[in-house]
Amino acid sequence: MPGPSAAVPDATVERLPLYHQVLADLAREGETTVSSVRLAELAGVNAAKVRKDLSFLGSYGTRGVGYDVEFLMLQVQRTLGLTGDARVVIVGFGNLGQALANYGGFGERGFPVTAIVDADPDKIGTQVPRSDANGESATERVVVEHVERLAEVVRDHKITVGVIATPQHAAQAAADALVAAGIQSILSFAPVVLDVPESVPWRKVDLATELQILSFYQARSGSLQHPA
Amino acid sequence: MPGPSAAVPDATVERLPLYHQVLADLAREGETTVSSVRLAELAGVNAAKVRKDLSFLGSYGTRGVGYDVEFLMLQVQRTLGLTGDARVVIVGFGNLGQALANYGGFGERGFPVTAIVDADPDKIGTQVPRSDANGESATERVVVEHVERLAEVVRDHKITVGVIATPQHAAQAAADALVAAGIQSILSFAPVVLDVPESVPWRKVDLATELQILSFYQARSGSLQHPA
Repeated sequence: MPGPSAAVPDATVERLPLYHQVLADLAREGETTVSSVRLAELAGVNAAKVRKDLSFLGSYGTRGVGYDVEFLMLQVQRTLGLTGDARVVIVGFGNLGQALANYGGFGERGFPVTAIVDADPDKIGTQVPRSDANGESATERVVVEHVERLAEVVRDHKITVGVIATPQHAAQAAADALVAAGIQSILSFAPVVLDVPESVPWRKVDLATELQILSFYQARSGSLQHPA
Repeated sequence: MPGPSAAVPDATVERLPLYHQVLADLAREGETTVSSVRLAELAGVNAAKVRKDLSFLGSYGTRGVGYDVEFLMLQVQRTLGLTGDARVVIVGFGNLGQALANYGGFGERGFPVTAIVDADPDKIGTQVPRSDANGESATERVVVEHVERLAEVVRDHKITVGVIATPQHAAQAAADALVAAGIQSILSFAPVVLDVPESVPWRKVDLATELQILSFYQARSGSLQHPA
């Protein structure tokens, strides 16, 4: 895909959601412009880095005025490919799957949890309130279905994102099933490296890893703050 | 803190937990040496990056033999400051807090959940099985206590890590309470930038952010795989 965003460095991509959120907050508060210094402060990043990051999007701001909040937000959205809701299926309805299903933040940020599957017959049929885009629980509910119905569920609900919340030993099978079902990207909570085709980008959220990284900075006796 | 690890780049620090896990798996399988190519394959990182990362730890391997698994694992542990269990308190016992409390992975990887606090009187007294270091549920249980008792709980249980699993609006108050209680590092699941002293490193796990980052790579039509 051509255009300036094709060359955005990974580290910048990882900060864009943060800028997006700060800009959304500013827009809600009625702010129309924001300086790089203020944006940096709100995002917890240094101002030079903010300016560099935004320059990859072709945004340079106006000297003495700063950036146009709405326009910059749109640019960030476009770069991130946030052009509409991307529906999510959660694979695994254990403690973590349940927490994720009940976590309002996904729907609010454009990733409504539209389906849940599990292999345990006792869990099939369980209902979870579905969060809509404004974070309120809608009257609609998501019903836990059998993992064998995954391909059908993905097709019927036009789902593009799979979230793996299974035990570690079941994660690769879940990934295989998601890929076979035609999912476009995967977020995994299992602490294993998944084997998926290159055409399906995936990320891993490993909670213990986060604590180990913190341990490094803590061991440095607080001599360095590591902004999240 | 002097020594080679003081200069380890952030990006390398973020990969060390992954190497640690791969090395632990190899050690369990009885492997005594590992080549950088094999280590890279198991970690899903390229081999040149693995060699560069490990060089920051002062590890260069032996030509034709590779790295000593046990020794390298110890070096990674020492660099990460994983010198013993670091006890964790979870602030907030909603869906996410419950999922985290029941998530065996923390205890297994040296971060036993030793206490849980919440502000809701209905939740105080709830018991959760405590996971010990081998991931099995011990007979010991963790009882949810009132957040007002946080300082006492942290002191009595020698807790050093705080995990914030509160709603977004309560996250800063939770951070303040954790800092006041003398906690040494914070992992937050609230999608906000926390204001904490520089001496307390913290990280944020924002689940919707992970999905937005995936969206970027997905929008690139799978032309780039982003290894997690």
